[in-house]
Amino acid sequence: MAAKVVVVGAGFGGIGAATRLADLPVETTIVDQRNHHVFQPLLYQVATAGLAPSDIALPVRGIFQDDENVDFRWATVEGIDFNQRLVHVDAGAPLAYDYLIIAGGSETRWFGIPGVDEHALPMKTLEDATNLRGHVLTQFEKAAADPEEVDEGALTFVIVGGGPTGVELAGAFVELFEVLGRDFHHLDVGRARVVLVEATDHLLNGFTEKSQRSALDTLGERGVEVRLGQSVDRAGPGRVHFKNGEVLATNTLVWAAGVEPAPLAEATGLERGKGGRIVVRRDLRPPGHDNVFVIGDLAGAVNRKGEPYLQMASVALQQGHFAGRQVGRLVRGRRPRNFRYIDYGEMATIGRNAAVAELAFHIRLRGVLGWYAWLLVHLVRLAGFRNRLSVLFNWAWSYLRYDRQARLIVHPEDQRSHRAPASDTGTRHLP
Amino acid sequence: MAAKVVVVGAGFGGIGAATRLADLPVETTIVDQRNHHVFQPLLYQVATAGLAPSDIALPVRGIFQDDENVDFRWATVEGIDFNQRLVHVDAGAPLAYDYLIIAGGSETRWFGIPGVDEHALPMKTLEDATNLRGHVLTQFEKAAADPEEVDEGALTFVIVGGGPTGVELAGAFVELFEVLGRDFHHLDVGRARVVLVEATDHLLNGFTEKSQRSALDTLGERGVEVRLGQSVDRAGPGRVHFKNGEVLATNTLVWAAGVEPAPLAEATGLERGKGGRIVVRRDLRPPGHDNVFVIGDLAGAVNRKGEPYLQMASVALQQGHFAGRQVGRLVRGRRPRNFRYIDYGEMATIGRNAAVAELAFHIRLRGVLGWYAWLLVHLVRLAGFRNRLSVLFNWAWSYLRYDRQARLIVHPEDQRSHRAPASDTGTRHLP
Repeated sequence: MAAKVVVVGAGFGGIGAATRLADLPVETTIVDQRNHHVFQPLLYQVATAGLAPSDIALPVRGIFQDDENVDFRWATVEGIDFNQRLVHVDAGAPLAYDYLIIAGGSETRWFGIPGVDEHALPMKTLEDATNLRGHVLTQFEKAAADPEEVDEGALTFVIVGGGPTGVELAGAFVELFEVLGRDFHHLDVGRARVVLVEATDHLLNGFTEKSQRSALDTLGERGVEVRLGQSVDRAGPGRVHFKNGEVLATNTLVWAAGVEPAPLAEATGLERGKGGRIVVRRDLRPPGHDNVFVIGDLAGAVNRKGEPYLQMASVALQQGHFAGRQVGRLVRGRRPRNFRYIDYGEMATIGRNAAVAELAFHIRLRGVLGWYAWLLVHLVRLAGFRNRLSVLFNWAWSYLRYDRQARLIVHPEDQRSHRAPASDTGTRHLP
Repeated sequence: MAAKVVVVGAGFGGIGAATRLADLPVETTIVDQRNHHVFQPLLYQVATAGLAPSDIALPVRGIFQDDENVDFRWATVEGIDFNQRLVHVDAGAPLAYDYLIIAGGSETRWFGIPGVDEHALPMKTLEDATNLRGHVLTQFEKAAADPEEVDEGALTFVIVGGGPTGVELAGAFVELFEVLGRDFHHLDVGRARVVLVEATDHLLNGFTEKSQRSALDTLGERGVEVRLGQSVDRAGPGRVHFKNGEVLATNTLVWAAGVEPAPLAEATGLERGKGGRIVVRRDLRPPGHDNVFVIGDLAGAVNRKGEPYLQMASVALQQGHFAGRQVGRLVRGRRPRNFRYIDYGEMATIGRNAAVAELAFHIRLRGVLGWYAWLLVHLVRLAGFRNRLSVLFNWAWSYLRYDRQARLIVHPEDQRSHRAPASDTGTRHLP
């Protein structure tokens, strides 16, 4: 009978692993609490109404439609019994495995800063992105209905975290506001402020100084107020307090400051190291568990120099491919190899016609060239899963028309919770 | 100073009126509780994962981006003061008007049948459609996790109402299930049942008998169980009881049985007639209110023979255009004309390659020809608002690949309310 493999998580790590396992004589089951894989590098495009959620999300079952030996379970993992080799889930029978790949990913880290987990908006899931989109559009509608709201911070958008997510979001906000400037005929959209806050003295940690400087300059030219060396002390309703004593009136505090391993890391009971990531050997197996691989943001893997890998999509994807292949070696009675990350480079877009790209072979692109490189790479990577012509069209449309089609406020009852529901259209279910 | 016009509602009636008002020397404000106009004839495509919400919804401000004299207020109307000529809203200052167009539309009618408003899923708004999509996909995931759920009705989908919405939804469900049959490798999707229930003895009331028969036959061939002359007695958790004593185990009861005027109709205090619709003269003005027009589903307008107009998109759109033009006449000191509906025909699609179309000049199309006619008309009508190439691509993709890209379960906390939330990713707001 074919060996059973369970893959926990349908992010880049889990999907990467499953695509390799699909070609092996094993029965694979992917388990995730969402029914879709999200192309996270473009999440900020959904949050700023440039792309629709279905442009960047694929149903997991759709990805493996032609792979009869890959199945999916829509469930949350409640625990893992390593002795019985069972994954306990909240929907259906426990999943038995011969080999297990844990790719549970990460979630927003709040750093224990008071009020932040209550008042800030995270940017990690598809729902986070559509919530943020609705929230931002709601602020403009509020300001249009009552201009005094602007003084209360309705049009002040604070983003915490100067990594790629924060930088890309800041740039995309400015572009969205240009479109909204044409939408709102009686509101001075020029009063909208984007404030990007970073605790260190530079943006885009890990990029070269020249790229960091380029990002800083470009954002500044486009009207983003970048505040380096500043950090949040606490957040309250309509206010954010900084460590230096300054207080900003804002309705929108976006939290892109960092991630931490999903609660699953703790629930496994496996030894955890720096940042709460599960300790693994260089072959990505936790000590004492020869049939288990831990990959992606959850894994505390280190390179040959003993440095931890960054929590980023390309690392997770490569570790996924690697883990899938090593299961193949184990099935054939071989020993796994050690994981080695191949660095193809990093990129971040700062908005229309501007990006920084630091690629292999010391290729460094900035400005328009960087932007085309970014567009090309992301389209190719999206297309790697499935041909997404509609993404190309949505982008081309946005680009040529300076338009943003998806600026919808859906589930307004979420956005307008301060008001009485307009009519009885809430979700209903037969239990 | 230019006359002020307020248009209540951004459905076909309100948008139709505003497009005419945009060309007049008046200042128009549209007020709606959603920030977008929905192309309702394609709502069933969103509910069955064929199109994304942003494919069929346009932000109201986007539609009138180039019309400086058309503004928007995102708010719910709380009341109308006809003496002071003020529309009271729940966001911002009251809206003053010289002319008022009331196009508040309709909502789902539950007919006072016990349990239905609690246990059935409506199909009227964009949120209804995405909720239904998530609900249906959830049922398949439940059945995959635990096949015994199928006996409990997880894969039994009951649609009540044999009008265009019910017929189109039933046909589209069958197509979605074909795609899901390839998605689910270990679930016998063939066990899924679609039951279409209609109280009268025919589908598609208002169409010719031949078209009704064609719809009935086509649905039957495709596996839909059509039950004519049957009506719902009551609904309970996981059960629907019919008047003839039969009980069906089902998790999904879709309510497409009828609509009733929005609560605004009553809130206006205007005289209401049959079905709760506001009484209007043949010029669409309520008696005694010479600067007010009531249009669309809310209006109890009658034709020259004294017959009420159907509550359908084309009537609302034509009445909207009409009301906008009559405001122009009033501004120029002229008397309004009487409204006359031009019947361009009706169509309903029954799924891939099959539709019935009854057009002007006694053109009757059925089957593949009807379907192409339907596709053409809907694309042209969508394009009338804005070029939506992505819709064309999504459709072409679905058609050629037998695929449905948008089969995402978003806001799973809504869909999976019977389970504990997997992680803390709920909506957050700065108040």
